[in-house]
Amino acid sequence: MSFALYAAPIVGVVALLFAFYKASSINKVSPGNDRMKEIAAYIQEGAMAFLSRQYKSLGIFVAVLFVILAVVIGMTTAITFLFGALFSIMAGFFGMRVATKANVRTANAAMESGMTKALNVAFSGGAVMGMSVVGLGLLGIGVSYIVFRDPAIITGFGLGASSIALFARVGGGIYTKAADVGADLVGKVEAGIPEDDPRNPAVIADNVGDNVGDVAGMGADLFESYVGAIVSAVTLGLIAYGDNGVFFAFGLAAVGILASIVGVFFVRGDGDPQKSLDKGTLVSSLLTMIVGALLSIMILGSFQPFVAIIAGLVVGLTIAKITEYFTSAEYNPVKRIAKESETGASTNIIGGLSVGMMSTALPIIVIAIGILVAYFVSGGAAEPAKGLYGIALAAVGMLSTAGMTIAVDAYGPIADNAGGIAEMCKLPEDVRKITDKLDSVGNTTAAIGKGFAIGSAALTALALFSSYTQAVQLTAIDLTKPAVIAGLLIGGMLPFLFAALTMDAVGKAAFSMIEEVRRQFKEIPGIMEGTTTPEYATCVDISTKAALKEMIIPGLLAVAVPVFIGLLLGAEALGGLLAGALVTGVLMAIFMSNAGGAWDNAKKYIEEGHHGGKGSEAHKAAVTGDTVGDPFKDTSGPSLNILIKLMTIVSLVFAQMFVLYGGILF
Amino acid sequence: MSFALYAAPIVGVVALLFAFYKASSINKVSPGNDRMKEIAAYIQEGAMAFLSRQYKSLGIFVAVLFVILAVVIGMTTAITFLFGALFSIMAGFFGMRVATKANVRTANAAMESGMTKALNVAFSGGAVMGMSVVGLGLLGIGVSYIVFRDPAIITGFGLGASSIALFARVGGGIYTKAADVGADLVGKVEAGIPEDDPRNPAVIADNVGDNVGDVAGMGADLFESYVGAIVSAVTLGLIAYGDNGVFFAFGLAAVGILASIVGVFFVRGDGDPQKSLDKGTLVSSLLTMIVGALLSIMILGSFQPFVAIIAGLVVGLTIAKITEYFTSAEYNPVKRIAKESETGASTNIIGGLSVGMMSTALPIIVIAIGILVAYFVSGGAAEPAKGLYGIALAAVGMLSTAGMTIAVDAYGPIADNAGGIAEMCKLPEDVRKITDKLDSVGNTTAAIGKGFAIGSAALTALALFSSYTQAVQLTAIDLTKPAVIAGLLIGGMLPFLFAALTMDAVGKAAFSMIEEVRRQFKEIPGIMEGTTTPEYATCVDISTKAALKEMIIPGLLAVAVPVFIGLLLGAEALGGLLAGALVTGVLMAIFMSNAGGAWDNAKKYIEEGHHGGKGSEAHKAAVTGDTVGDPFKDTSGPSLNILIKLMTIVSLVFAQMFVLYGGILF
Repeated sequence: MSFALYAAPIVGVVALLFAFYKASSINKVSPGNDRMKEIAAYIQEGAMAFLSRQYKSLGIFVAVLFVILAVVIGMTTAITFLFGALFSIMAGFFGMRVATKANVRTANAAMESGMTKALNVAFSGGAVMGMSVVGLGLLGIGVSYIVFRDPAIITGFGLGASSIALFARVGGGIYTKAADVGADLVGKVEAGIPEDDPRNPAVIADNVGDNVGDVAGMGADLFESYVGAIVSAVTLGLIAYGDNGVFFAFGLAAVGILASIVGVFFVRGDGDPQKSLDKGTLVSSLLTMIVGALLSIMILGSFQPFVAIIAGLVVGLTIAKITEYFTSAEYNPVKRIAKESETGASTNIIGGLSVGMMSTALPIIVIAIGILVAYFVSGGAAEPAKGLYGIALAAVGMLSTAGMTIAVDAYGPIADNAGGIAEMCKLPEDVRKITDKLDSVGNTTAAIGKGFAIGSAALTALALFSSYTQAVQLTAIDLTKPAVIAGLLIGGMLPFLFAALTMDAVGKAAFSMIEEVRRQFKEIPGIMEGTTTPEYATCVDISTKAALKEMIIPGLLAVAVPVFIGLLLGAEALGGLLAGALVTGVLMAIFMSNAGGAWDNAKKYIEEGHHGGKGSEAHKAAVTGDTVGDPFKDTSGPSLNILIKLMTIVSLVFAQMFVLYGGILF
Repeated sequence: MSFALYAAPIVGVVALLFAFYKASSINKVSPGNDRMKEIAAYIQEGAMAFLSRQYKSLGIFVAVLFVILAVVIGMTTAITFLFGALFSIMAGFFGMRVATKANVRTANAAMESGMTKALNVAFSGGAVMGMSVVGLGLLGIGVSYIVFRDPAIITGFGLGASSIALFARVGGGIYTKAADVGADLVGKVEAGIPEDDPRNPAVIADNVGDNVGDVAGMGADLFESYVGAIVSAVTLGLIAYGDNGVFFAFGLAAVGILASIVGVFFVRGDGDPQKSLDKGTLVSSLLTMIVGALLSIMILGSFQPFVAIIAGLVVGLTIAKITEYFTSAEYNPVKRIAKESETGASTNIIGGLSVGMMSTALPIIVIAIGILVAYFVSGGAAEPAKGLYGIALAAVGMLSTAGMTIAVDAYGPIADNAGGIAEMCKLPEDVRKITDKLDSVGNTTAAIGKGFAIGSAALTALALFSSYTQAVQLTAIDLTKPAVIAGLLIGGMLPFLFAALTMDAVGKAAFSMIEEVRRQFKEIPGIMEGTTTPEYATCVDISTKAALKEMIIPGLLAVAVPVFIGLLLGAEALGGLLAGALVTGVLMAIFMSNAGGAWDNAKKYIEEGHHGGKGSEAHKAAVTGDTVGDPFKDTSGPSLNILIKLMTIVSLVFAQMFVLYGGILF
């Protein structure tokens, strides 16, 4: 059954070719008039400048870690690590490059041809991102495994992907929110000019932020989940089913990619954009399920592992639905926050925090049930190795159609950017209407994507955790031991610390941005009259510098703490730490993302005319909540997903060291 | 060495006699003029009305649980449960009764004799509370153990104490914050009348709230910690050292009470009140340490267990210092929040949330180190039973001088109430100055008390957790099993759910209060002119009803979920649940308490004239933060301390059932 293994890198290359084809089809679309080209160039230059400077900083980090790995673990792991980091960077780079081309072309398509063509361009941009991510991911792990045939070594690839993902998410999150808050608080609130107005000095930085945060950051995030899930399935599959366990994991991933490519063709954009996207998603999911079921019987000789995959899918979809309930203005929670805004900002804040905390309950229960079902259906206590493999498969199942999920997810910020360009270039009113429609559809799909991201992060982290316990040869991680409890407490604390650090970073960066925008309005004459172009570049520079500076400490923390605790307290206490971080990391991620989403939509709900509408006291209170929610949902919350996986994968890579030298203290 | 066992109830009675003596000395102080008596009577009636109605509701709960325990576990456990509940109720009742007498007498003493006498009366009130708590606690467990000689049965006493504590904390917390927010938002902000103005219809409810929340709620909370720590030390001591382990636990507790009584005599109130209180605390701590060390050598034949006790004390003191750093306006975090208030409510909120999250890091590390030191110094992996006993002793050591800690803690709200009465009765300016001075000293001591409450809750919960694993005869709680991870996830989620429920409850109750106060201002003529007395009773009634109604679901949840999960997933998964709840419970408690404290003091710092002072935009933003912080620090945060202990003790009591019937699903 080794065909499935060799199919993996081939399908990876197919995905990349498909991405290349889609990218060149976007290039053929006209970027519009000179003004549009000019604005688009600003955004593209800003985004690329950020990426190249970020990559330079990361280069140092990668080089240092490469040397450490080469010395401590071995040259082969160090090399796969290097490739993992490189591929992650490439995925982000490709995605961002095409997104910054697709945005202006979407705006132009909306102007020249209307909704259908605009959706096509925007979605093609997303598809390039999606296919780059899964293509590079599967190609990288596939080749690494074929060459080394050792799960421990391909874990290095996962480490490369994870560490870049964390920096990209944190850096991108800080960048985008600093620019967003700065542009809003001074431009919209103080100067009273509309969103995306070219007179706002931070407007380019804001649009660059959408790309580096929502496109590159999100892409690196899902690249990591994707790689992590496959790595853990390979590790656990080898133990449970021998080579066949490995083959099935790769085969399933390959099928998912092919099905996603088919799905992309079903997104035609004729009629309702939402339905069009749904159709594509449905087709690729169904195809994956059918072929996946056949593969399960063919390769593993059993239908049961496939049930685990279904369990993973159901978990993802259910969390998506729950997320929608707590964050959409259709339902009670958001409506209640909107109503509570009438009595002021404090009741709005309490309401949002409470909704966010409340919203953790059901997803956690669903994840718990999902774990138990995946485990017991595929082996259970009688065959625990197969059971754990089932959990990893649930994660892979959820992520197998990531090519499609990312395409649908990344299309949103492209449409959003197109709207910004339309505004800045003063394109006709109906262009903005089309991009607004596309953007609002993007918000719904983003909620679903978020559900999948959280669900898959939890399952992947758990599967990696199981791989870790295998790697350090622990038969148990025993909570009755005080060292394990100490690890659990410290691990549980890390997401709180991490969230505090990233929120502070946004605060600091936003503060500098606010001061710069105020300075420009005051010192440069003619900005408000539109006779002088503001100094966009200095704002871009502030966001860039702040993001690069502030991403360092949280990033290093995530890598250093597991190694430190593993050496000091030993492998079992480190297991406790990983479990603690998993629990509070997932909880805080759900809490922060959903609270932020709920505040955002409560504000929009009021802006639609409820509770006094725009400009009312309720609206002011809701704006406060939304601003608090910004770093919650776009910086701290999503970073936690990566944090828990990265810490586990660091522990997994250094497992052998902890077995040999861990537990210095005892 | 059984003298120590028999000494326990005797010393308990001594403490109660001392409380009685102190209470009668308060009674001899004049309650002042007719107006003061009238206002004090309103507060006392309101408080007593709340308690009696709360006890009626709890009666049903206690009766039902009594029957369940009698049928499922055994009549003896059911009886000790009943006594635990009864004693907890009595501790709350005594404390509140004397507090509502001491408040008006403190005000009068301040008017007639000055600071020294006023401190004496207020502190005597606190001492009655403290001595009632420790006296009833030690008497109850001591007699239960002498009669039954079975740790499993005295756990019933702990269950009684815990369940009442949870309802008292949650109910009291909802009561006080609903009244506080209602009185502030309508009275201070909308009508523009000062704090504690008799024209405010919610003013009596607000002052009643200080008593039912800060005095009765806090007393029940510490009664539970105190009892829980001793119960776990007895359980683990019997395993580690046989009867001597039990004797030492009781002996240490008895010594702590006697030392606290001596300490009370050192609080004379001459000179600086802060120094006076510090002297009393220092004397009782030193005495306990010296005699404790001797007892350790005498009874256990080793100095090592005593080192564990010192570790516990150091943990408590260190957390108190850290709490002070993050919540006092002397230091950077609060100053930064104050500065961030200049850019509006949203930056103030982000700042407070970030400080709260950041403030979890050090306490958690300190607790982790404390656990490891207590464990390894008293036995470690070579003698794990003695090591676990060491952790329990660390908790007992921290709580042994609870009589003094509570006295110092409860004196604050009495002084606060005295200030309220002075305001309402229009007593001379310098009376208010004295009570303000006493109140501000109380705020500092409250921070230290909070550090001890959180630290002791963590250690007690952990010791109870160890007792649980012994009771269900588990040799390991293995995190590599998916059922344990599922338990860990669900347990970790419960504090988030619990916090959301209690925050919502405060929100709902405050909303009714706001509407009622608005109604009275509008419909009753002459209130603002001071010619008509507002209908205080309806406001008191609203807080009472809301508190009673809203405390039910969170309370039942805490009792029902462990039983449900234990039966469904088995004893080991329940162990995972308890560990998960412990971790996020401690984290959320620290986060919420400290964020609330920091917001509160940032507001006060601005009111002192910084960043524009009272009435400035920064002040408005800071008021928003303070209002968000109210349910954080006075309702949800402190309730979590109890939640984690209660769930563990429920599991401990029903342990046998899980061994026999647990794990239906598998």
